[in-house]
Amino acid sequence: MRQRNKPWADDFLTENEHFIIPDPALNKGSWSKLFGNSNPIYVEIGTGKGQFIAGMAQKYPDVNFIGVELAKSVVVTAAQKIMENTHENVLLINEDAAELENIFAANEIAQIYLNFSDPWPKNRHEKRRLTFHAFLEKYRDVLREDGELIFKTDNRGLFEYSLVSFSNFGMTLKEVNLNLHAIDDPSNVMTEYEEKFSAKGQVIYRCRSVF
Amino acid sequence: MRQRNKPWADDFLTENEHFIIPDPALNKGSWSKLFGNSNPIYVEIGTGKGQFIAGMAQKYPDVNFIGVELAKSVVVTAAQKIMENTHENVLLINEDAAELENIFAANEIAQIYLNFSDPWPKNRHEKRRLTFHAFLEKYRDVLREDGELIFKTDNRGLFEYSLVSFSNFGMTLKEVNLNLHAIDDPSNVMTEYEEKFSAKGQVIYRCRSVF
Repeated sequence: MRQRNKPWADDFLTENEHFIIPDPALNKGSWSKLFGNSNPIYVEIGTGKGQFIAGMAQKYPDVNFIGVELAKSVVVTAAQKIMENTHENVLLINEDAAELENIFAANEIAQIYLNFSDPWPKNRHEKRRLTFHAFLEKYRDVLREDGELIFKTDNRGLFEYSLVSFSNFGMTLKEVNLNLHAIDDPSNVMTEYEEKFSAKGQVIYRCRSVF
Repeated sequence: MRQRNKPWADDFLTENEHFIIPDPALNKGSWSKLFGNSNPIYVEIGTGKGQFIAGMAQKYPDVNFIGVELAKSVVVTAAQKIMENTHENVLLINEDAAELENIFAANEIAQIYLNFSDPWPKNRHEKRRLTFHAFLEKYRDVLREDGELIFKTDNRGLFEYSLVSFSNFGMTLKEVNLNLHAIDDPSNVMTEYEEKFSAKGQVIYRCRSVF
């Protein structure tokens, strides 16, 4: 995602510490307390501009959502997007996905969403793909036993790679969809990217898997 | 596959018992003896008109191939096709895939190929799909430990179903390809159906998996 320099971003983050949580590791194991309820927690890795998590939060008011986005200039855009509506069940974290197991305790998360993650197509960048086994280990460590990893992409190479990666890690596929928009799935909330590229006829892949 | 009545089929089968093996269960555990060598044995379930197995047999002379085809009128066409060239490393069986474990002993087979199997799209016909767990059990029972199941189809629904079925059965995906003809894979031998439908722009899916 293109990142613009936003000189106001630091001030924005300071003003919205109740929403974009600084030092998220301090809340490890006590995110439910922060939300003030015991609803299940869904995490999106790479929240981008926030359309998905905003849509999900509205659709599922009885779920708590946490968006993780590394780029500061992007997380503030997501925050503005989410704040257009109610956002009592959404929090954001401006942090690296690699830190996941420092931010969440074992069994703290019910679902993890990966949406249109960077494909890192070169073999030598395999380790950076969010479906590389080192990341799967982190997801497994924070997901509860029946917790699902839901992965959506339009990148064929990344999807092929990821199915094999999940399988080699011992995960079980619960659903594979090779043309998501060919079915009418009312549960699907589109990301900005998904809306744009599926309109151009790009096939969207999705799978749900458990550890 | 459309089956025409072929009044000469019975005579043809009798004349070619060295090639289309009657009572295949009698050879359980001793197929290598029949081939006269200890080369690995690859089995194609649903050989159809035989283009795939004929091409494979020519490409891999150090492998023994056995084609299993239930339809009598189809297996004779396959036989004629294969007999156009040398066929010392091919045998055919006019038998139901459900009989697999009665025909082959444990560890007797190195690879199993499913090519463009009938998708049986209705839920109530799930049991008839060649990737239904009851069939996977049979494949596992006859494949050697590192033996692979290689599955190719243009049917999206069947491919989605099969990936989930393999995963639920505890199999591991070694390769998933969501547009086989987008890459130049010299190892790929096309079936009649594949040739026809990929020419029309149909996407071909393939996966390799182990038990």
